[in-house]
Amino acid sequence: MLAAVSGGADSLALAAALAFEARSAGVRVGGVTVDHGLQPGSGERAERTAELLRGLGLDPVLVRRVAVGADGGPEGAARTARYAVLAAAAADLGARVALGHTLDDQAETVLLGLGRGSGPRSVAGMVAERTTGGVLWWRPLLGVRRATARRACADQDLPVWDDPWNADPAYTRARLRGEVLPLMEEVLGGGVAPALARTADLLREDLDALDELAATQLARLAGEAVDGGLPARELAALPAALRRRVLRGWLRGAGVPDVQAVHLRAVEALVTHWRGQGRVDLPGGAGALRTSGRLVLSPPVVRGPRPEDAPHTREESRP
Amino acid sequence: MLAAVSGGADSLALAAALAFEARSAGVRVGGVTVDHGLQPGSGERAERTAELLRGLGLDPVLVRRVAVGADGGPEGAARTARYAVLAAAAADLGARVALGHTLDDQAETVLLGLGRGSGPRSVAGMVAERTTGGVLWWRPLLGVRRATARRACADQDLPVWDDPWNADPAYTRARLRGEVLPLMEEVLGGGVAPALARTADLLREDLDALDELAATQLARLAGEAVDGGLPARELAALPAALRRRVLRGWLRGAGVPDVQAVHLRAVEALVTHWRGQGRVDLPGGAGALRTSGRLVLSPPVVRGPRPEDAPHTREESRP
Repeated sequence: MLAAVSGGADSLALAAALAFEARSAGVRVGGVTVDHGLQPGSGERAERTAELLRGLGLDPVLVRRVAVGADGGPEGAARTARYAVLAAAAADLGARVALGHTLDDQAETVLLGLGRGSGPRSVAGMVAERTTGGVLWWRPLLGVRRATARRACADQDLPVWDDPWNADPAYTRARLRGEVLPLMEEVLGGGVAPALARTADLLREDLDALDELAATQLARLAGEAVDGGLPARELAALPAALRRRVLRGWLRGAGVPDVQAVHLRAVEALVTHWRGQGRVDLPGGAGALRTSGRLVLSPPVVRGPRPEDAPHTREESRP
Repeated sequence: MLAAVSGGADSLALAAALAFEARSAGVRVGGVTVDHGLQPGSGERAERTAELLRGLGLDPVLVRRVAVGADGGPEGAARTARYAVLAAAAADLGARVALGHTLDDQAETVLLGLGRGSGPRSVAGMVAERTTGGVLWWRPLLGVRRATARRACADQDLPVWDDPWNADPAYTRARLRGEVLPLMEEVLGGGVAPALARTADLLREDLDALDELAATQLARLAGEAVDGGLPARELAALPAALRRRVLRGWLRGAGVPDVQAVHLRAVEALVTHWRGQGRVDLPGGAGALRTSGRLVLSPPVVRGPRPEDAPHTREESRP
């Protein structure tokens, strides 16, 4: 196991807790800290964090320097670079990665997702455990308040580094943390962060159920059909939210790249608003059409991943 | 059709639009305005609104005085009293009720639901059409901005009444409107209200699909079983979010009153964490138990509504 540690209170409390558990359970816990190279002295900062981790008994302790690009804004670009280097370090060691996100981070993530308006999945927050690219990401503190992590550091005399970005009003997350959530707490009568986190948990469960049911329906409807198509009448009988997921899974599974809502709506209309319309053009050069009561792709897409391997419809920017 | 009109910009714009449509379509549109009796001069205020509606050609135009209780806080109590009198007026006339809620109201409702943290349905906002107690409630302006409604009134020289409650910081919704949403707009870069409304729409579709699938599963699993029970193994095979809905529908359908999350979890454990545990006590005196691989109720509850009549799991405070 590899703890990802920024040197802030959350990840430091996580590293200390894991080191403690590791000693009593005889498990090996390493640590990795990332130098984003964006602030003066960030290299020394990272070395000091590494020393702290060694002092806690973590082994190995890695410092990784990354080059942050520009895509997705400063926060997004730093995150992308950080997760790439964490994934590489974890893969090297065959370890999973423990992340220090707390309940308060979860609440901020839900608000960010709400602001995007890109659908329920973007409001469902971060998951406690997920495997992507062969790496297992683990967030054991998602139910823990940030104040608790800070108190744990104080109790253990761990010197906490407060990233100035976390309070810099130039960054969206910092303003959600410092302005929006406190105002919501005041107006809505307290308990807003736990309420957001709880809603995200329940929502994730609902969305996972729909994704699972859609995968089952897709397998059932696609069956062993030689045309790789789907029966229109049976699609029509599904609830809309399920039908759309089945169609998305079908298109992705057939290797159609970059399926957007507009494509999905047009393909769905072949089922729900059938009036003899022609081929629906899709990204990558394929098209969907309805013939003899079946939806088929034409020309057949060069087979990419099979339906059961297709990635889920996730809209998060993190693993 | 009966337009519910407070005299504010939203409902006045709605009444004017419906009156216009009614003239061209030859449909009859009436109006009803409610005097809550909570502010000095509210009676005269209601009469002036009624005059305005008559001037727009609405017929009949009703003024209803209500007695507002104390349950659920001032906003909640006024709403409860208002909906009761609107429902009675609609039932008398055999009319549906048109409500002036806009996209901005929807965004506020989503934030209120988030603050409650009582689950995805509370974040799914208001529906455009719903029948409750035999009355059809219709919200044709849910996709329209509040500013558009106000502009429509100005364009038609309609005198708008601005309810002082709508700006009174003593009321949660007024503060969401006046403080929280503007700050979120600023921090998240604009478009927050439409994003919240869009998320609510997509979420509602997902939750409706799950409710529909759960009802289908319940009908399939309950079948014609003489014991009124459900097979544990098949319940265990369902995704958690679906299983919980099936169990809730089963208990409600069997007439168990006031099913809470704690009861549901205990009944679910009979399926998912079976270790020979005994009867789970339920409100109303019944208990659920597992016997010979089936969940059954004991003593059998005196049959209330049948499963297919059971109300959906709605957590809204409005129709």
